[in-house]
Formats: sequence, structure tokens, C-alpha cells
Amino acid sequence: MDFELSAKDPASKARAGRITTGHGQIDTPIFMPVGTVGSVKGVNQRQLKKEIQAQIILGNTYHLYLRPGTGILEEAGGLHRFMGWDGPLLTDSGGYQVFSLAANRKLNEEGAMFQSHIDGSKHLFTPERVVDIQRSIGADIIMAFDECPPYPSEYAYARKSMELTHRWLTRCVQRMDETEPRYGHSQSLFPIIQGSTFKDLRTASSEFIASMECDGNAIGGLSVGEPEEMMYEMCALCCDHLPEEKPRYLMGVGTPWNILENIALGVDMFDCVMPTRNGRNGMLFTSEGVINIKNKRWESDFSPVDAGIDSEVSQYYTKAYLRHLFVANELLGMQIASIHNLSFYMHLVKKARERIVAGDYASWKAEMILVLKRRL
Amino acid sequence: MDFELSAKDPASKARAGRITTGHGQIDTPIFMPVGTVGSVKGVNQRQLKKEIQAQIILGNTYHLYLRPGTGILEEAGGLHRFMGWDGPLLTDSGGYQVFSLAANRKLNEEGAMFQSHIDGSKHLFTPERVVDIQRSIGADIIMAFDECPPYPSEYAYARKSMELTHRWLTRCVQRMDETEPRYGHSQSLFPIIQGSTFKDLRTASSEFIASMECDGNAIGGLSVGEPEEMMYEMCALCCDHLPEEKPRYLMGVGTPWNILENIALGVDMFDCVMPTRNGRNGMLFTSEGVINIKNKRWESDFSPVDAGIDSEVSQYYTKAYLRHLFVANELLGMQIASIHNLSFYMHLVKKARERIVAGDYASWKAEMILVLKRRL
Repeated sequence: MDFELSAKDPASKARAGRITTGHGQIDTPIFMPVGTVGSVKGVNQRQLKKEIQAQIILGNTYHLYLRPGTGILEEAGGLHRFMGWDGPLLTDSGGYQVFSLAANRKLNEEGAMFQSHIDGSKHLFTPERVVDIQRSIGADIIMAFDECPPYPSEYAYARKSMELTHRWLTRCVQRMDETEPRYGHSQSLFPIIQGSTFKDLRTASSEFIASMECDGNAIGGLSVGEPEEMMYEMCALCCDHLPEEKPRYLMGVGTPWNILENIALGVDMFDCVMPTRNGRNGMLFTSEGVINIKNKRWESDFSPVDAGIDSEVSQYYTKAYLRHLFVANELLGMQIASIHNLSFYMHLVKKARERIVAGDYASWKAEMILVLKRRL
Repeated sequence: MDFELSAKDPASKARAGRITTGHGQIDTPIFMPVGTVGSVKGVNQRQLKKEIQAQIILGNTYHLYLRPGTGILEEAGGLHRFMGWDGPLLTDSGGYQVFSLAANRKLNEEGAMFQSHIDGSKHLFTPERVVDIQRSIGADIIMAFDECPPYPSEYAYARKSMELTHRWLTRCVQRMDETEPRYGHSQSLFPIIQGSTFKDLRTASSEFIASMECDGNAIGGLSVGEPEEMMYEMCALCCDHLPEEKPRYLMGVGTPWNILENIALGVDMFDCVMPTRNGRNGMLFTSEGVINIKNKRWESDFSPVDAGIDSEVSQYYTKAYLRHLFVANELLGMQIASIHNLSFYMHLVKKARERIVAGDYASWKAEMILVLKRRL
């Protein structure tokens, strides 16, 4: 994996760059649509590539391990071939899902024991196992196994958890060194900073993670319920301790304005289920603000879903038609809203990159955020 | 509306033709995907046109009248513009839905009183009202208001019901004559033959319907639970009494083999929810037979969903991936299965037309049906 920085915004820490993987290039800052179980919900692969213009998508180790399982994925030749996606792919480690979805989880030095949320079957994830599973999945970017403490956490717990995450990271790095990619393309491991909302822990974690000299670095444990200002503070602190020449990935963030703020702090990569999950519930992010498309206000509004972005679906369908689809519980409503929201996120990071290159990101961002947050 | 017959199969009554409407041409025999509430379930308009290559789609007067309602449709400039479909459109009259979906329906000479299945509100459909609603929807082909008796029906009831349908037809024709299209394109009324499974009633109804000299004619009240052989017998009888120079539409039919059999009897147009409804449940019609894609048998079958048809989606995705999507309850599974099944139906009628033109439809049909009915 290669990362090249091409521009820096003079009035913020925003950067424009390009990641090169075995499955193609990614312009940063980038948003990564989430394809939890091998499918970006409601969206097909053609739509993902041609309409949304996704450059990299995300898969979830926990979900893919349970269904379809590594056996099928290996037989298929990895997730890229299984799902028919030939662009870059990142898998998270499953740490977050084990703690948020699985039942009866037990944590110890070795790893995490848990029961499947699907059938109650028992499983053990260790740092080594999680690397092995991600080798089977074949993602271009592999995440280290971590524990993500909830917000708020006690200092003592946050520290103990962070230290465990660091020890697990050392084991992940070792496992990566001992094993080979299965499908001929290289795989890069990204470690994850933890430390909850404690500055000294975040600093220590950032320094430890940076010292591992991986191809890229991630910031975890944010956007888990803390105030937005606290997220920005922690993110800024982490970015300032991370090497400039490596991509920085802020996990699970967030709203359009969260993304613009964190880009200004030096983040290069984002993922979030919000555009698809909220889309399925009729919440649209648009170039004029936030829309609840089920609202009666849109009943006879025959303007496009979003005329402000260059997306076929957003231009083609009207607000009145999309509202009708949601009111009538038509599947197509979820498809259109998901494609629109993802297209909008992609539009936003593309525009952000253009402004960074142009050198006026900070002022553009300040104006945009006012528009993006409007409730229409 | 214009209909031109271009070929007749020597060994059956199958015909190839072309209907010309204000929104383009339709090659017959044709299958019409059902877009009940202004959307073919799970499929967007680009997919409908480019991937499925639908030539005409269906809307439901009952559903569209309740949601979004004629006010919104008129404001939008008709259903074509409301939903973004610029091809030919047919709307059924709502008769069938009033009797299958609505509550507390009461029938008299005037029309049908019913309560909405959505909110219990009371409504009256009369032949005149149903023509007016379809004028507001703006379909290219409008269906007459009819009563569709269940199977089995008593002779006396079937006769009374048929006579009412005939009197309602006279009123529909009169209303058509008294009113104008709203959106500048012409609209054609198709009357509907009823008569349950009684030969003399079907004959009488066919003769009455033919005597109205409408642009096309429909056969209703079949595929409502009667044995397949009885459906074919009734359909054959109706076709033999209908004018050759007008298109014949068999309503609500059916499986791929039903369609091929009825084409052989002289039917030109079909509609059915089966490809989309069954698709959403994981049942696929393919060029090798019927597949339940949820079956474990397909777990690691990495062959295309259907290599035998020229459809992007059917060729691109594997059976193993589609099975995985269904097992994991991913929305994309329903999208792929619906697009595949509709593409398959379109493929089938296209091939049928080619065989009619080539003059060997009857023998091709006999072979195809054996393949289509196979359970894989």
C-alpha cells in the first residue's frame, strides 16, 4: 500500500492524498460505504461503482465470519470475488461488533469469547484468529483486533482496556508477519488508537500506535455517545501524534458535518452506516440540508431529490415520488434513499478534496456546515 | 393505438405483432411487469428500462387512487411523469383489488362501495369513476371496471356477475366517449371477458366484448384457483371468439409455462406479480428450471444466477452470493431476484416471438416447458 500527500490546506490541518492498493487508487479524504455482510444494504455493485462512485467499501469481519463463513469465502477466492466488487476493500476486526452485538461475551488476555447473535453458537476471537479471518476475507486493509470501551468509561477501565488493545496489536502485527495474503494482492494492517475521552491515554495510545509503523493508522472509540466537541478534541489530539505520511482513518464517523470537521483536523478516511441506515428510514442528507422525506411537506414537491449533486438517482426522482414510495412502504424508496445518501457523502468528500487542493477548505467548510445542518 | 400482426405460427394459434401507443411500441407477445403503487417492487426505473428491457408496465387503479391519490397524480402530470417512466403504461380497473383487498365491499348496479385496506375510509367505485381515475393516472391502456368472480362459482352467480360486468362495460365505453385524455396522449379502453369456467358464459361474454369493437380485449377471471387445464380451455375458447386484428390480454397469468401455453392459444399480453413476489421469497425462474435460492445446495455454487439469458444481473451475480444475501436477509437479494425473474420473463416472451416468426413455436414450446418446470 502506498500513500501520497498531494495538498495541504493552509488554514486547517486538512490534507488531500491518494492511497494505492492492490485493487486500485483511493482519493483522500474519502468516505467508505459500509457493506456489513458482503452487501451495501439496498444497493447493487453496479450502482455502487457507476452511480455512487464508491472508491473503497467496508466489510465486517464479525458478520462475514458468521455468514457466509471463511470456508465459502476461501472457496470463492475471497470477498472481492464472492460479492463481485473489484475495488479496494477494508474489513474491520470484529472487535466493535463482538461488544455491541454478540451475547455472553467474555474477555480475557487471550481474546473474546462470544455467542453468535444469529444462532447462539460459541466462538473465540483472538488477535491471531482475527488476522487469519481477514486473510481469508482478503481485504486490502485489515484492522487490528481491539476493545472499544463505551462512553462514558472510568479512567481505570479505559486504561486497562487500552493496554489490552496494545498487547493485542503486537500479536496482530506478529501474525501478519507470519502469514501471507491468500489471493495474490497485498494486505495492510491498520492499528487502532483507543483511550476513551482521556487526553493522556489518547496521547499514549497514539504514540504507541505510531511506533508500530504500520501502513496507516485508525482512531477508534469515538462517536460512541460523547459530545461532538469532545470527539473533535480527541480526534485532533490523535491526529497530531500520528505520522503525517500515513493515512488516518476515523472509525464510524459520522454526519456530513462531523466528516467536514474531522477532515479539518487531518483525517483522511471515514466510514459510517448513517447514509444507508438513515436512508432506509427516510432521512436524506442533501446539498440544502436534512430532509425527512416522509413529511407531508414533500407531498407535491416535484423538484429533484437533490438537484445540487451530480447523481443520476438524485436528479431523476422527485421528492414527491420518493415520499410516496416511503408512505406506501415500497422497497424502491429504500434503494433510492440509500443511493442518494451515499452519492451525497461521496460528493461531499470530493468537494472537500477540491477545496483542499484549491487552498480554501477552512472557509468553505465553515459555510457548508451551516447549510448541511439545516432541517428542511 | 395501433396493432399490427406480423407472423402466425403454423402449428399453433400463436401470433407475433406490434402495438403502437402514444409512449412507444410493444412487441407481442409481451409480459408486463406489475408496478402496483407506481413502482415495480424492488426495481428502479433505469433497471426496468435498461436491464429488464420492459416495454410496458402495469399500474393498479385501486392502489394509486388511495396512494398517492388522483390529486397528486394530476399535479405531477400523470403517472408517467410522477414515477419517471416514459414507456407505455396499462392500468387495471381496480375491480379485482376491490374484491380481493378492500373491506366491507358492497356491490350494486351503481358500482362497488368499499373501505380502504389502509385506513378504513369509505369509497365508491363506479364504471364512470374508474374511467375518470384512469384518465387522471394517464395510462395508455385503460381497463374496464368488472367483477371478477371467485373459483369455483355457481352458474347463476357467474351469469349474473357477467351480465353486470357487461352493463358496466357499456357505461365505461360511454364515459370514455364523453371524456378526453388529460395529458395529450391517447388512451385506449380494453373490455374484460368474464363468465367463470362456464363455456356458454365465456362464449357469450367473448361475443359481447368483441361486439364493443375496442382497441384490444382482455380475458379476466382466470388463474384464480381453477386447474391449469381448465384455464387453457377457457382461454382457448375466448381467443377463438375474439377478433384476430386486436391484441388479446390474459390478466394475471402466470408461470413461465402458463405463458408459453397461452401464447399458443393466441394471447398477446400478460401480467403477473409472480416474478417479483416469488423473487422476493427467493424463488427464481431460470433457463434451466425453478430454483429455491435459499436451498443449501447453492451454498458454494459460484456459477451465475442464470448464464442462459442475456441479463447483466443474472450473469454477474453467482448463486452462492445470492443465496448468502437471502440467508442474511439482505435487501439486495430481493433486488437481484426481482430483476433476474423479470429479465427471465422478458427473455422468454422475446424468444417466443422469435420462434413464432421462425415458424416453429409449437415444437419449441413443448421442449421449453419441460425445462422450465424442472425443480433444480
